[in-house]
Formats: sequence, C-alpha cells, structure tokens
Amino acid sequence: MPILVHKYGGTSMGNIERILSNARRIAADIQKGYQVAVVVSAMSGETNRLLALADEIDPHSSGRERDMLASAGEQVSIALMAMALHKVGVEAVSFTALQAGIHSDPFHTRAKITSIDTSRLREVLDRGGVPVVAGFQGVTDNMEITTLGRGASDTSAAALAAALGAERCDIYTDVDGVYAADPRIVRGAKKIERISFDEMLEMAGAGSKVLQTRSVVFAKKYRVPLQVLTSFEDKPGTMISEEVKEMEDILVTGICSDKTEARITLWGIPDQPGIAAQIFEGLSNQGISVDMIIQSKGQDGLANMSFTVTKPDLSDAVRVTEKLIDTLKARQMGVDEKIAKVTIVGVGMKAHGGVAARMFRCLADKGINIYMISTSEIRISVVIDEDYTELAVRSLAKEFDLVDESVEEKGA
Amino acid sequence: MPILVHKYGGTSMGNIERILSNARRIAADIQKGYQVAVVVSAMSGETNRLLALADEIDPHSSGRERDMLASAGEQVSIALMAMALHKVGVEAVSFTALQAGIHSDPFHTRAKITSIDTSRLREVLDRGGVPVVAGFQGVTDNMEITTLGRGASDTSAAALAAALGAERCDIYTDVDGVYAADPRIVRGAKKIERISFDEMLEMAGAGSKVLQTRSVVFAKKYRVPLQVLTSFEDKPGTMISEEVKEMEDILVTGICSDKTEARITLWGIPDQPGIAAQIFEGLSNQGISVDMIIQSKGQDGLANMSFTVTKPDLSDAVRVTEKLIDTLKARQMGVDEKIAKVTIVGVGMKAHGGVAARMFRCLADKGINIYMISTSEIRISVVIDEDYTELAVRSLAKEFDLVDESVEEKGA
Repeated sequence: MPILVHKYGGTSMGNIERILSNARRIAADIQKGYQVAVVVSAMSGETNRLLALADEIDPHSSGRERDMLASAGEQVSIALMAMALHKVGVEAVSFTALQAGIHSDPFHTRAKITSIDTSRLREVLDRGGVPVVAGFQGVTDNMEITTLGRGASDTSAAALAAALGAERCDIYTDVDGVYAADPRIVRGAKKIERISFDEMLEMAGAGSKVLQTRSVVFAKKYRVPLQVLTSFEDKPGTMISEEVKEMEDILVTGICSDKTEARITLWGIPDQPGIAAQIFEGLSNQGISVDMIIQSKGQDGLANMSFTVTKPDLSDAVRVTEKLIDTLKARQMGVDEKIAKVTIVGVGMKAHGGVAARMFRCLADKGINIYMISTSEIRISVVIDEDYTELAVRSLAKEFDLVDESVEEKGA
Repeated sequence: MPILVHKYGGTSMGNIERILSNARRIAADIQKGYQVAVVVSAMSGETNRLLALADEIDPHSSGRERDMLASAGEQVSIALMAMALHKVGVEAVSFTALQAGIHSDPFHTRAKITSIDTSRLREVLDRGGVPVVAGFQGVTDNMEITTLGRGASDTSAAALAAALGAERCDIYTDVDGVYAADPRIVRGAKKIERISFDEMLEMAGAGSKVLQTRSVVFAKKYRVPLQVLTSFEDKPGTMISEEVKEMEDILVTGICSDKTEARITLWGIPDQPGIAAQIFEGLSNQGISVDMIIQSKGQDGLANMSFTVTKPDLSDAVRVTEKLIDTLKARQMGVDEKIAKVTIVGVGMKAHGGVAARMFRCLADKGINIYMISTSEIRISVVIDEDYTELAVRSLAKEFDLVDESVEEKGA
C-alpha cells in the first residue's frame, strides 16, 4: 500500500478541536487506501513557553538541557494526536524520536538526522495503524535527546517520508501553499501550484520561510514530493517535486526579499591574488558565512570588494575585517545595514534568455539602484537599498506575471 | 562519600525562583560533603493541565498515551532543575526514567518499579555531579514509557535512594513534616519528629496523605531513612526510620481520619463456614478491595456481617453483594455511606497495654458510638458516624498528648 506522511505544525496542533480535525483527515486518507505516518510539532506557543522558562534561569543554559526541555512539547503532541486518532476509530501509537529510532549527531539544539530505523513504525503501519512521531527531536547513539533546530519538524517529516519510501509528504500548516511573492507585500500574489525542489531550495535560501531548507534537501535527495497545504480548509496546496518539462514554460516562479543581511565594503585594495582568500578564511574561522561577494576594479588599478553577512554576524565580521585592513593595505572600510536582497527564481531561466535584462530594466524604470548581483542557473539576486524592497518586489511580480489581476483590481 | 537523595514535589518546583532555591540547597549539601541525586515532580498543576487535555479528547483514553503525555511534565522539570544547578555552579545532568534506567512493569498509569540500573547516575555522582531524575516515570523492557500512579515521585525517590545505597532520602514538600493529627482539624497538633516505617505505613493506610505508601515500603525494605520537610523554610522535618527503643515511650504517635469508605451490612446470614469466602471472592473477582470486616452472631443464631469498601467501589460492591443475598439466605442488606474511620497509630502500644480501652472510653465520653473495630499490633481503627469525625480526632489528640497546649491556648 502506498504510504503518506502527514506533518502538522504548531497552529495545526493549537487546540483539541484542531487535533481531532487532523485525526479525521488522516482517517479519510486511510479510507482512500493509504498507510499514513504522522509527524507533529509542539502545540503552538509551547516551545516558546518552555524556552522562556529556561531563559528565566539562564539565556545561555546548556544545549543538552534545552533539548531535554523543548522536546517535551512534541511528546505532549504525539500523545494527544494518538488519542485523537483512537477517538475517530483509528489505531495509532505515539513515538518519541528515541522510540521511533530517529538517530542524530550529538550537536544539541542544531542536530542533524543521521539515520532512521523504521522497524517499529513499519510494524504499526503493517497492521493498519498510524505511527505518530515527534518532530524536531532526534536521539544520539548514547540515548541523549537532541533537537534539530527551530522549525525542523518539516525536516523530520521529509526524512521520515524518505526512510519509509512514502509516495508523498503533506506538510499541513496555517497557510494554503507557497506564494509567488509575499501576499503581505504583493496584493493578489499567485499561489504556486507546482515548484521544483531546486526552485524551492533557492526560495528558502532567498528568504522564503514556508519550508526549512533541510526538509527540501531530504525530499530532493530521496525524490519524495512535498505538498504544503493548510489544515484549516480542504483544498490542494503547493506541490514541490522533481522538475518536469512544463515548469520551464514559466519564466519566473517566485520572488523573495530578505532584509536580514548587511554589506561590508573595502575600497582600494591592491588587485592581486590571495586577497579574497585572506578575508574569507578569516571570516570562516570565526564561523561567519558570507552570502554575496563582488569584486570590482577601479580606474586607479586598485580593487573594491563588497560582501554580505547576516546582521547578527555583522559586528564579528567587522572585527575580523578591520584587523586585515593594514595587511591588505585597504584604503577604507564601509558598512551598510540598510540593504535588502531581492531574488527571482525560475527553472524557465534555463531555457529562456533575457530574464536578467528584464529584471534590471524593470528596477531601473522605478529608479532603483542595484548594488550587487549574484546568480545561479535558476536564480538572480540583487542587493538594493532597503527602502525600495517592497516597490521592487511589487514591480517584479507584475513584470513576471505573478499577480492575479482580478484580485488586484477587486482589491484596489 | 555518603549519598543523599533530594526529592522535590510540584509546589517546590512551582516557579523558577523556587527551582533556583532548591539548587542552592543542593549545592549546600554538596559543600557539606554529600553526593546528591535529585528526583523531581512536574511543576505544580502541570500534570493536571496535561491530563485535562487528554480528557477533552476522551476521559477513557489509552493508558499508554496518557503516560506518554503526563511524563512530559517531569521531563520539563528535570531540565529546568539541571539548568538551575548549572546556574549556581554545580555540574548536573538530567535523566528521563528511560535514560536513568528506572525499569517498571508494563501496567500503564499504575506501573511498579522492577529494577534500577544506576550506572549512568553513578558516573555523574562519581565526578561530583548531580543526576536529576524524572520522578513518576518508568520504562518497560520494550522502551515504553510508563507512569507509577499519581504522587509516585516519592516512590521514585525512595527506590532510587535504595538503589544508590543513600544515607537518607529527603522529601521536600510544601508542609514541614508529618503531623500527629491533621492541623486543619486539631489546632496545635504536634509535628512528629521521628516515626518508624511501620507507623508511617499504618498512617498512610489510614488516610494520611503526606507520603505514598509504596515509597515507605521501599524505604523500609532497603532501610533508607526518609525525611519529610519543607522546601520553603530551612528547618528539620519528620524523620521516618527503623524503630528505635525511644519510640516506645510514646503511646500514640499519630491519629488519622478517613471519610472515603462506605459500609455494607448483611443481616441474618446462616452462621456457617464459607459464607465470608463467597462474598469476598465475589468482590475480589471484580477487583474490589475490602478494608474492615466484622462478623457477629445474633441471639437468633444467625450472623450479621459488615465490611467497608471505598466509595468509588461502592456501587459495584453492592451489585456483587446483592446477587449473593439469595444464595446466602441473608435476610436484609444495608448500605451506610455516612461513616468515617478514625485510627490511632503507635509502636508504644506493643509495650503498653490499655491503649484501646483509653481510646474507647474517650470516644464514649463524647457520646460517639463505635460501629466497627479493627486492630494491628501498632494500630487501632474504629468506624464511627461521619458527623463525629472531627470531634473524635480532637478528643483523641488531647487524650494521647498530641496537642501543643501553648499553641492551642494562644490560638483560642
């Protein structure tokens, strides 16, 4: 029998009524001939409540104990979901990560799943029951409880779907799918019906918060389609799957913006090999990731270099870079926190030329200056002045046909 | 180094301030040269909150899932307590029952501890750390989470103290010890300084709720003294230990009353062997425990029989007994729910005669009629009219010198 994995997030587990409604949906999928395994998050607000207690003692409390604490939230959810399934007449057994055999590395609060031993879950599935598994948790070889990072229940679900060879992993949440642009910025933004794993990865990397990047990596690696859909209504969501030919007909699938980065610029560096290496080795040694980098040559034969880091890393990055100013013989250093990254994503770019030109023209027409550009085969990102973020996103959404005009007009 | 087990109940874990105060107390005992292991309950109200969620789905939800749910409460507590110990500079590691190796039988919601594998805990103790263990929980050989019954964290603590060969198990709670009589009934009731395991067992069986019976059984079996004391003040509590000679100097150590039982009476039964067996086998088959039993012979040569069961069992007990009326050729059956059991306990009774006579005389002087009597070597229980409970307890407390007269006068 084909297997489905259902994943329910915090708002979908927000109260008993919602939990029972999920149980009825699971029962319906079983009626349709599926075996269903379920992954759940903690009830909405619970993880925050627990970690606030920890912070009251010490905001820098031990990762091991924070994991012990926070994982209790999912344990409550699995038990309630199993009870709700019993209530609607479905056999169900709850499993902590330890019981389910979701093994992870030992890095507390940000552990990564290393393997899943599905034998106990398959036993339940094979007798027509529903295993209800705690998301967000892992267990080390030493039986220590880990957590996989905030929002990682999606990753638990995708990994479990992969391990069970599921036909699909349905991620139930409080939004009805992935939108081509943030509907809070673009009125009438279209919902994406179908998007490729690679596009979704680019979107997640560019600021889309619908799915955790790692969940998409798992799904792509094991070729398990993900569906993002709402648990509050009965309608299809957004399907994330391998690339199919029709996807190329759409030039741009989605637009994202991201205000979490800041830019550091060094002016007047000697244009010689090894300069970039010195800077980025220094940053990397401090655990600081650099996103975009550009290097340009001035008329004086000296080079200028700009790169972006996340704002929380900025002060560390400035410290590292300042130390190198003398070594590099740089003339000046500048920091700009008022920037935004705007990204368009689409597999259609591979087949159709001129997308970048259209993007830059569209921004130029609105008088928006581009500071930095970076591209992949299916993505173009630009860094602009933060103040122009929403204007840029709206203009690009219109340019690339990502707005449902009827909604836009009705709303206007 | 001598080992102490500290156990903190729900009110002692009620908020972060209290948890930190416990951590400082533990640190002080370590300063004194003890190794300390800690057992904690869920934060006050948490177990009720969780089980109320379960009841919202189904009051008869599966025991396995109720255990999965409720055990999350202690998991929160162990993590917070470990963090609090870190905060005051003490190494500490939290352990769920599964991690601590507290094995139980598989009877959910009322499991019994079968063995404790202390190796991981000893590792922590031996390097000067504090293992913080979840009370109330157990784990089966199949890695299923069980709970040991409401209030069973005391039992977890006593069992752990036994397994670790602890010098003493300190049960921290919101009362400052065991009182010779309920202070809500007897103004100025004396606090008991020292009481034997056997007396404490009799008290628990007679309605004292300070300690769970099973915790005392463990402590007695493994000869680990228990101390009941408050976590809200720094003062000694009540020590529960093996009997020592001085205890016999006190005639009556404590008085308890219990209004949770009801009495069933059968009149006019043929006085022949096997009658009692028929009744009590029938009740036992339904899982109903009988507490007190008396059989008396009337002038007509027929017997009357009375026995008590707990009020929740009453309707089942009546049903079972009614079915036997014809077989037994009983003339009539009666039920009395308005009864109370009043018990005096004291090892002094073994050495000193006349305690029962003094008790009955004291009650008679107040015009209190005795319906039933049962005794052990160190206990006398009487069943009386419920309305006279408080009067009986107060009179007996005065009779047997269990009232601090100065407090009584000051209060009056």
